[in-house]
Amino acid sequence: MKNTISQALKISEVSESKIGQVDFENLNFGKIFTDHMFVCDYVNGEWQTPEIVPYGPLTMEPSARVFHYGQAVFEGMKAYKDDNGDTFLFRPDENFKRINISAERLAIPEFPEDYFFEGLNALLKLDNEWIKPGYGNSLYIRPFVIATQASVSASEADEYKFMIICSPAQSYYSGDVSVLVAEKFSRSANGGFGYAKAAGNYAGQFYPTKLAQEQGYQQVIWTDANTHEYMEEAGTMNVFFRVNDTLLTAPVSDRILDGVTRKSLITIAEKEGIKVDVRPVKVSEIVEAAKNGSLKEVFGAGTAAVVSPVKAFGYKGEHYEIEKQENSYASYFKKALMDIQYNKAEDTFSWRYKV
Amino acid sequence: MKNTISQALKISEVSESKIGQVDFENLNFGKIFTDHMFVCDYVNGEWQTPEIVPYGPLTMEPSARVFHYGQAVFEGMKAYKDDNGDTFLFRPDENFKRINISAERLAIPEFPEDYFFEGLNALLKLDNEWIKPGYGNSLYIRPFVIATQASVSASEADEYKFMIICSPAQSYYSGDVSVLVAEKFSRSANGGFGYAKAAGNYAGQFYPTKLAQEQGYQQVIWTDANTHEYMEEAGTMNVFFRVNDTLLTAPVSDRILDGVTRKSLITIAEKEGIKVDVRPVKVSEIVEAAKNGSLKEVFGAGTAAVVSPVKAFGYKGEHYEIEKQENSYASYFKKALMDIQYNKAEDTFSWRYKV
Ligand SMILES: Cc1ncc(COP(=O)(O)O)c(C=O)c1O
Ligand SMILES: Cc1ncc(COP(=O)(O)O)c(C=O)c1O
Repeated sequence: MKNTISQALKISEVSESKIGQVDFENLNFGKIFTDHMFVCDYVNGEWQTPEIVPYGPLTMEPSARVFHYGQAVFEGMKAYKDDNGDTFLFRPDENFKRINISAERLAIPEFPEDYFFEGLNALLKLDNEWIKPGYGNSLYIRPFVIATQASVSASEADEYKFMIICSPAQSYYSGDVSVLVAEKFSRSANGGFGYAKAAGNYAGQFYPTKLAQEQGYQQVIWTDANTHEYMEEAGTMNVFFRVNDTLLTAPVSDRILDGVTRKSLITIAEKEGIKVDVRPVKVSEIVEAAKNGSLKEVFGAGTAAVVSPVKAFGYKGEHYEIEKQENSYASYFKKALMDIQYNKAEDTFSWRYKV
Repeated sequence: MKNTISQALKISEVSESKIGQVDFENLNFGKIFTDHMFVCDYVNGEWQTPEIVPYGPLTMEPSARVFHYGQAVFEGMKAYKDDNGDTFLFRPDENFKRINISAERLAIPEFPEDYFFEGLNALLKLDNEWIKPGYGNSLYIRPFVIATQASVSASEADEYKFMIICSPAQSYYSGDVSVLVAEKFSRSANGGFGYAKAAGNYAGQFYPTKLAQEQGYQQVIWTDANTHEYMEEAGTMNVFFRVNDTLLTAPVSDRILDGVTRKSLITIAEKEGIKVDVRPVKVSEIVEAAKNGSLKEVFGAGTAAVVSPVKAFGYKGEHYEIEKQENSYASYFKKALMDIQYNKAEDTFSWRYKV
C-alpha cells in the first residue's frame, strides 16, 4: 500500500505487522525493531525525498566509506506513552540539534529539521502499537547517518543515508553498577570529537570495558586523557557525584557529550534548590570523599538508563563502596524526569513534545 | 562454477569478468574493484569457512553495530607485477600482524593467519589479470573487518565479517603537497586507539582537513593532543623531516600508526648510512630549521603514496616553503622501495613475498 502524507515524505506500509510475534515481557535491548523505518539518501549534493518503508536489510557496497572510515553519527531518544494512549518525546529538539553538531564535526551534511520531525512523527504514528504504556516502558528511537559512497579513498563521502529505526524497550532494573575509573585508557582527545555522538567514539571503549568487566566492574568512568586526574563521563552516560548535599559534574567540553539527561537534571536541581557545581571533578577529591564518608552518591545520567546509581568504584587497585542512601538524589531525579516523560507531572520546562 | 581448492576455502568464480569495461589509463583511486572478493564470517564464537565470491553488495541489517559504534578495522597493502608477470606483495606479514593488533584494541576476535594468506593468494591468482605490470601500477588490497551483529546495544559484537576487496591503482603524480600543522584539532589521545588502523580514527580527520584545504593545504600533520608541540603523523602517512643530513621522525606510540613504509625506510636509511633520529620532533625545531635553511626535506611515507614530498607547511598563520633538493632523500627512498617491490633490486631484507 502506497500513499503520500505530504510532498516531502513517501510512505510505504507493511502489508502485515510482525508485532504479534514479539514477546513484550522479555525484550532484549536493541534487538527487535518495529515494522517501519525512515530512510533519506543524500546524493548529488542534497537530501532526497525521505521515505518510510518496511523495516529491513540494506544493500551496501563493500567499499562504502562507513565500513572503512567510520563516518557515521547517531542519536538516542525515547517515545513514552501515558495512560490515555498519548505519545510523547522528551526534548527532541535537543537530539535534532545534536545530530547536526555531531555531523558537522564528522564532515557530514546537515539534515533538515522538517524532514526529521515529519519523519519522526509519521513513523511513530505508523508504529504506534509498538509503544507500550506503563511506567518505564518506551520505544527507543535511533536516528543515524552513515557514509554510503562506494570508494575507499580516505576523505569525506558525497553520499549518505539518514535513517531512523525504533526498538521497543522495557523497564528493567539490572542492579546498581560498579564502575572502574580509567587510569590508562581514554575515550577522547582534546581537539578530537568526543563531544560528538560519532560511531568512532564507542568501539574504542569496548576493549577497556571488557578488561574492567574481568575485574568485576560493569562500566568505565573515563578520565581526561592528559593526566587521568579528572572524572569525565561513562560509556553512554554523564556522571554526577554527590558530596554531602552538593552535586558535582564535569563541564562539557570537546571531549564530553552534552547529554540531554545531564542538562535536564541540572535544571531540575536548580529549581529544587539542590546545589550543582559544574566544574572539573578531581578523582582524588572523590576518593577522599569516599574515604571520609562525605561521598553520598554517584550516578550516571543518560537516555537509555535514565538515572543509574553507582554502588562502588575501583581506582588504582582500591575498591570503594558507596553506602546506599535513603531518599537518594538519584531516585528523586529519576522519578522527577520520568514523571515529566510519562505525562504524570506538570511540564514546567516545556520539555514534553506530543506526537 | 563452484570448486574447492582446499578444505578451508570455498571459491565461486564469476561467469564473466568485467575487466574489459575498465579504463586502466584513467583509474580513480579506490572506485573500481576486481571480479572477486574474500569473505569470512564470525558467528557462534568462530570464524567460519572462508569464501571467495563474485564482488558485489552486502546485505546488512540497519542495526549492524558497525553503523552505530564504528567497530571496524582495516589494512592497506599492494600487489606489484614485474616484467615477467610475477606478482609480489611487500611485507604482508606486517599487515597481517597489524590487523590483529588493531582488532584486539577494538575488541574484535583475532583472524587466523592461514585463512588470511590462503585467501589472499587465491584471490590474487583469480584476479591476476587486474594487476597491471609497469612501474607504479599496482593492485591496492583492502582487508577489513566489520561488526555485523544486528543489535544497537553499545558493546562489542558477537558477529563479524572479514573481507578482502581489491582495486587497481595507477602510478600518478599529483604534485608535491602542502600541509598544515595542527594547532587545535587532534587525531588521537594517549590511551586511545590511534595506533590501530580502526575506522574511527579516520572520519574525525575529514573536517579539520577540509578546513585546511580551504586555506590551500592538502593535508594536516597531526600534533600531540596535549600540547600540540610535537609532530606526529599525517592522515594516511608517517612523516619524516630532513634537517641537514639527518632524518627525524616521531617514535610510534599508542597515538601513532606503526607504518610499514616508515619502518622500511628507517631500515634502508640505516643500511645506507643515513642517520635517522627516532625521537619526539618539536614543531618549533622544524620551524626554526625552516627559517635557518637547515630543513632540507619533509616527506610522508605510506603504502598508498609510497613517499610523498611536502613542498610547504603552514603553522600559526605563517607559511614555510621548503626548497626543492637535487638528489633528495625522498626520491632516493621512493626508488629504493619500489625497486624492491617491483622485483628490480636485490631483496636484501627479505621483504618480497611471491604470490
Ligand atoms: C558518551 C555519552 N555520554 C552521555 C550520554 C547521555 O546523553 P543523553 O542524556 O543525551 O542520552 C550518552 C548517550 O546517550 C553518551 O553516548
Ligand atoms: C594513520 C596512518 N599513518 C600511517 C600510515 C602508513 O602506514 P603504511 O606504511 O603501513 O601504509 C597509514 C596507512 O596506511 C595510516 O593510515
